[in-house]
Amino acid sequence: MRDVAVIGYGMTKFGELWQTPLRDLFAEAAVACLADAGVERGRLQSAYIGCMSSGLFNGQEHLASILCDYAGLAGLAATRVESACASGGAAFRAAYLEVASGASDFVLAGGVEKMNDGADATYCLSTAADQEYEVYHGITFPGLYAMIAHAHMHRYGTTPAQLAAVAVKNHRNGALNPYAQFPVEITPETVLKAVRVAEPLGLFDCSPVTDGAACVLLCPVDVARELGKPVIRVIGSGHATDAIALHDRPDLAAIPVVGLAARRAYAQAGITVADVDFCEVHDCFTIAEIVCTEELGLFERGRGGPAALDGLTARDGKHPVNASGGLKCKGHPVGATGVAQIAELVMQLSGRAGARQLKSPRIGLAQNMGGSGGSCTVHILEVGS
Amino acid sequence: MRDVAVIGYGMTKFGELWQTPLRDLFAEAAVACLADAGVERGRLQSAYIGCMSSGLFNGQEHLASILCDYAGLAGLAATRVESACASGGAAFRAAYLEVASGASDFVLAGGVEKMNDGADATYCLSTAADQEYEVYHGITFPGLYAMIAHAHMHRYGTTPAQLAAVAVKNHRNGALNPYAQFPVEITPETVLKAVRVAEPLGLFDCSPVTDGAACVLLCPVDVARELGKPVIRVIGSGHATDAIALHDRPDLAAIPVVGLAARRAYAQAGITVADVDFCEVHDCFTIAEIVCTEELGLFERGRGGPAALDGLTARDGKHPVNASGGLKCKGHPVGATGVAQIAELVMQLSGRAGARQLKSPRIGLAQNMGGSGGSCTVHILEVGS
Repeated sequence: MRDVAVIGYGMTKFGELWQTPLRDLFAEAAVACLADAGVERGRLQSAYIGCMSSGLFNGQEHLASILCDYAGLAGLAATRVESACASGGAAFRAAYLEVASGASDFVLAGGVEKMNDGADATYCLSTAADQEYEVYHGITFPGLYAMIAHAHMHRYGTTPAQLAAVAVKNHRNGALNPYAQFPVEITPETVLKAVRVAEPLGLFDCSPVTDGAACVLLCPVDVARELGKPVIRVIGSGHATDAIALHDRPDLAAIPVVGLAARRAYAQAGITVADVDFCEVHDCFTIAEIVCTEELGLFERGRGGPAALDGLTARDGKHPVNASGGLKCKGHPVGATGVAQIAELVMQLSGRAGARQLKSPRIGLAQNMGGSGGSCTVHILEVGS
Repeated sequence: MRDVAVIGYGMTKFGELWQTPLRDLFAEAAVACLADAGVERGRLQSAYIGCMSSGLFNGQEHLASILCDYAGLAGLAATRVESACASGGAAFRAAYLEVASGASDFVLAGGVEKMNDGADATYCLSTAADQEYEVYHGITFPGLYAMIAHAHMHRYGTTPAQLAAVAVKNHRNGALNPYAQFPVEITPETVLKAVRVAEPLGLFDCSPVTDGAACVLLCPVDVARELGKPVIRVIGSGHATDAIALHDRPDLAAIPVVGLAARRAYAQAGITVADVDFCEVHDCFTIAEIVCTEELGLFERGRGGPAALDGLTARDGKHPVNASGGLKCKGHPVGATGVAQIAELVMQLSGRAGARQLKSPRIGLAQNMGGSGGSCTVHILEVGS
C-alpha cells in the first residue's frame, strides 16, 4: 500500500442554512478544499461523498454525480457512500484506500447533509436504526441513547453532572470555532435544567439538526512532498460494523463496534492510545462521548464520566477530546460529520486551528459512528516529514 | 496495485418477491456467494453493498451494517455505495480497489434492491434524476429515455422495429436464465403493439420493477490460485460521472459518460473493444442498449439499431450482448443490477451459464449506468491462468 497524506480541507459553516441548497453546500466545501490544497480541479480523479439520506431529506439520490457536476467536477469517478452518521468516515476510508491502491493520485473525500429542507428529521434519522424491530415500535435515537445512558449510570454510577460536563466542555471549545453552529459557552445549569428529551437526556445532551458540508483532499505522501505540503499522513484506518438494533447487542452500557474499529486502527498504525495527542469523538449525545472515550481506551470502563467532569478531556487536559466543539456545539450534518472531524485533525496538526489550537499535537484520532453503534470508523493522522 | 480475481457469485432469483424482506434478499445472495467460492465467512474482511434507495423504498438506511449482521457477517468493514442504478457497479469497483490496495484479501461486493415493498417505485426511481430541474416538473425515467429515443430516431433513422429487436433478443436469452424475472420469449409484435408508456417506448421497451440481490467475492489473483480457483481477473475498471439532468448535456442522442468510462477501462486493460468477446449492457430501456453499444464502440454511432435487428448482438452474433437476458428480461433491482452483471460474466467465463452458455469466451465486459447517464461503470474480466 502507498503512504497517503491529507493535503487540504474545506468546510461550510454548519447551521440551519435554509437558503443554501444541498448541491451548493457541497460545491462550497469542495471548491474551498481544492483552493486550500492548491490543486487544480483537473488533477482530481475520483471522489467519495458521505451522505446518510439525501433521498429522504431532499428527494435526491444519484448524489455524487449531481454534486460533482455542480462543483465543476463532472467526469470524475465519483461515488456516494452511506453508513448512517458514519457516512463521512466511510467516505474518507474509501478515498484513502483508492489512493493507497495506486489507482488514483488525487481523491476527494467529502460529506454533506441538508437536514433542514422540509422533511421530518426525526423520521429520516430513525432509518439508521432497525426499521422493523426498533423504529416501527416507536423508538428514535434520543430514546436509544437514553437507554445506553441509563445502563451506564446503573452499572458505573455515571451522573447527570458528568453528562453535562461533556456538553459544557464542547461548547467551551466550539465557541472558538468559526464553523460551529452554536459558538457560545453554556453552564452546567443550562444543561441540567433544560427541557427533557428522553430521560436522562435533556436538550443540551443532544447534538442539533444541522446543514453543512466538509471536504478533504488525499494524495500519496510522495506527491504531498513534491507539492511542498506539510505531510499529514494517514497511519491508521479502522472500520467495523455491528448489529444496528440495540437489543441484538449483549451490553447496553458498551458500544463494542468502537473498540473494534479502534483496535484495527491502532494495529495498522503500530501505536497505542497513549501515543494519541488528541481526539475528535462522535458525541451525538453526551453519553456517546463518555462511552466512546472508554471504548477508544482513553479511560477504563466506567471512568469516562468522571474524566469529563475532572477536565481530563478539556483542551488543556491529558486527553483533549473534541477541540472543535464536537457534534454537540459544532453541529451534526450527519453525512458531513466524519469528514469535518478529519478537517479538524488537519487544522490542528498543521497549526491552523486559531483560538482553539492545541499545543503542537503530533498524532490525532477521529472516531465517527453510525446509529447507536452499528458502524464505526477510526482514523489516525500523524504530522511529520 | 495487486492483481484481483473474482472467485464466486451468489444471486437470488429476480422478481416480485413480496414474501422476502430486504435483509433476507441480501443474506441469501451473500451466503450463496461464500458457498460458491468455498471461503468461510470468518475470512471476509470487508464488504461494499450497492443499493440505490433503501431509504425511500424501505425506510431503512445504515444498510451495510444491518445486511451484514443478518448474513452472519457482523464485524466486517462494510459500506453501502450509491450511484442510482449504477450502485452495484460502483460497489464492485470499491471492492476491487480495496483488494488491489493490499488492505484486505477477501472483499464481498454485493447489490440489493427491494422495490416492491409498498413505496411508489416511480417516485423512488425519479430521485436518480435532477430533483429540482427535472423531477419537480413532472418527468420520470420513461419520459427521459423517450426523449433520447426520439433524438436517436431523428438523427440516425433508428426504428421501432430496431428497438423491439433488443427486447425480443433479451427475452430469447433470458428465457434460458433460471434467475430471470420473466423467463419467456416474446415476439416483435408483442413489443410493437404493447401499451405505450412514453412514445416511442411501450411496456416491453422498459425494464421491470424488481426485487433481488447479487454478490461476488474478490481476492488477489495469487490467493485465487492457491485456492485452486479458475483465475477470472479484473483487467479493467472504468468509472465516470456526468451531469444527471438531460438538459445539461449537449447531445440527446448520445450518453457520453458510457464512452468515458469505457475508454478508462480499455486503457487500463490494454485492449480495444475488438478484444471483448461478450458484454452485459445496461438496457434499462431498449434505446439504452442501442446507445450504449455505440458508446462502448461495438458499433458506429447510429448503427446500434440496425445491429440489433440484424442479429449482431444475439448469442450467436458477432458481439453477444446481454446473454443473461439483460435488465429487460432478467429484471432490474436497481442496486443489484451491476453486481448481477459481474455474476453473469463469472458464469460465462467459467463455463457455468447452462443453456445460455457462450462458446468459450475469454474476455467479458459489464456496463452499468445510473439514471439517464449521470454515472457509469465499465468492468472487464478475463479468464486465464
